[in-house]
Amino acid sequence: MISKGELIYEGKAKQLFATNDENVLWVEYLNQATALNGLKKDAILGKGELNNQITSTIFEHLRQAGIKSHFIKKLSKTEQLIEKMTMIPLEVVLRNVTAGSFAKRFGLDEGINLKQPIIEFYYKADELDDPFINDAHVLNFELATAEEIAELKQATLEINQALITMFKKAGIRLIDFKLEFGRNAKGVLVLADEISPDTCRLWDASTNEHLDKDLYRRDLGDIVPVYQEVLRRLDAIKE
Amino acid sequence: MISKGELIYEGKAKQLFATNDENVLWVEYLNQATALNGLKKDAILGKGELNNQITSTIFEHLRQAGIKSHFIKKLSKTEQLIEKMTMIPLEVVLRNVTAGSFAKRFGLDEGINLKQPIIEFYYKADELDDPFINDAHVLNFELATAEEIAELKQATLEINQALITMFKKAGIRLIDFKLEFGRNAKGVLVLADEISPDTCRLWDASTNEHLDKDLYRRDLGDIVPVYQEVLRRLDAIKE
Repeated sequence: MISKGELIYEGKAKQLFATNDENVLWVEYLNQATALNGLKKDAILGKGELNNQITSTIFEHLRQAGIKSHFIKKLSKTEQLIEKMTMIPLEVVLRNVTAGSFAKRFGLDEGINLKQPIIEFYYKADELDDPFINDAHVLNFELATAEEIAELKQATLEINQALITMFKKAGIRLIDFKLEFGRNAKGVLVLADEISPDTCRLWDASTNEHLDKDLYRRDLGDIVPVYQEVLRRLDAIKE
Repeated sequence: MISKGELIYEGKAKQLFATNDENVLWVEYLNQATALNGLKKDAILGKGELNNQITSTIFEHLRQAGIKSHFIKKLSKTEQLIEKMTMIPLEVVLRNVTAGSFAKRFGLDEGINLKQPIIEFYYKADELDDPFINDAHVLNFELATAEEIAELKQATLEINQALITMFKKAGIRLIDFKLEFGRNAKGVLVLADEISPDTCRLWDASTNEHLDKDLYRRDLGDIVPVYQEVLRRLDAIKE
């Protein structure tokens, strides 16, 4: 039996605990929402539960599509077990459709399909506001090797295809998303962190309504019923 | 004989005129300095003359080092002839040493030697404030092809080596610089624009004093005597 040990990391929306297995961590999803790199912060009842369930469901979907992640299993409504990783301090963003900072940076409307998915790297460093960086910066700061950069991009494109297929069945348009990767005990690059409406832009396929954290970022409404709707749709397409 | 035709483009620091040869333009360097993407702007007597002469000297140095540019010849103190280009709307920045926006973005001191030169692309678009972009953006907006991106990077690294060698002889440390490229009538990628203390960070090799436009950007002093010093040193190393 796996047992929960001491708190080893507290992030914006999750706590990580050690376990009696050195390669396994115990995750607790918190009822917390943040935006603007932590400047905006609120407790939202039910959010931790929803993100844990949505992330677990998505990682299970990906596993069926042949894509490994750090996810081992869901333990409870707010808890899951994951494989312990040495995290790569990069946010890997993939954009299928213009939105958010991308639309703003290039003076474009939101909602325009891109010809090809665009991948961007952001350097995870709170004190620097997670700056957008290029491959040369990744190499210079030794965040990943050239081989790993190629692997990260390839994996992200494959995950994109699997996610598009999954969300399409659920009547959801996948606008963009952010992934994080780690190296496991064997040094293999593995998808980690979470995939949820906190980390993806999800628009209703018919109405283009936001089904994601932009509701919170932009003060457009309550995220709980919308995250519930995402979970309901993902559960409904389970085989 | 080549003759000057109508004004076809007015930039921040130069005017371009047509000539009686459709593949040749006539450039007039202006006594104007701008910074902060045009927010700061001043007329500086003698600056046009100095930049025309410095750029001409550097392009001649590069030609001797086997590197082609759009430069044909200097006509007068403020004028030169160049090959007409279809410009690629990219600023190609190469950094040998931390400084400016790079140091700020990564919370680093200025003046640290980078292990490897870092190349960055900025999208030339005044209305967007010339955003920093990555290769995927270059491809998406069709600013250059994948082959051209590789060619731009390779050319920039070679130009860096030639410039480092040249400036070293002149007792100058090449911190970073910005290049622009165009395609000539035959579709060949060619180095264009200018190379001057407006587009390079140049520090005195012994004292690390600024010999470049940072004096103007940061209100540190008069640029004219310093640009004169750069020209004097470059003339002194001519073979």
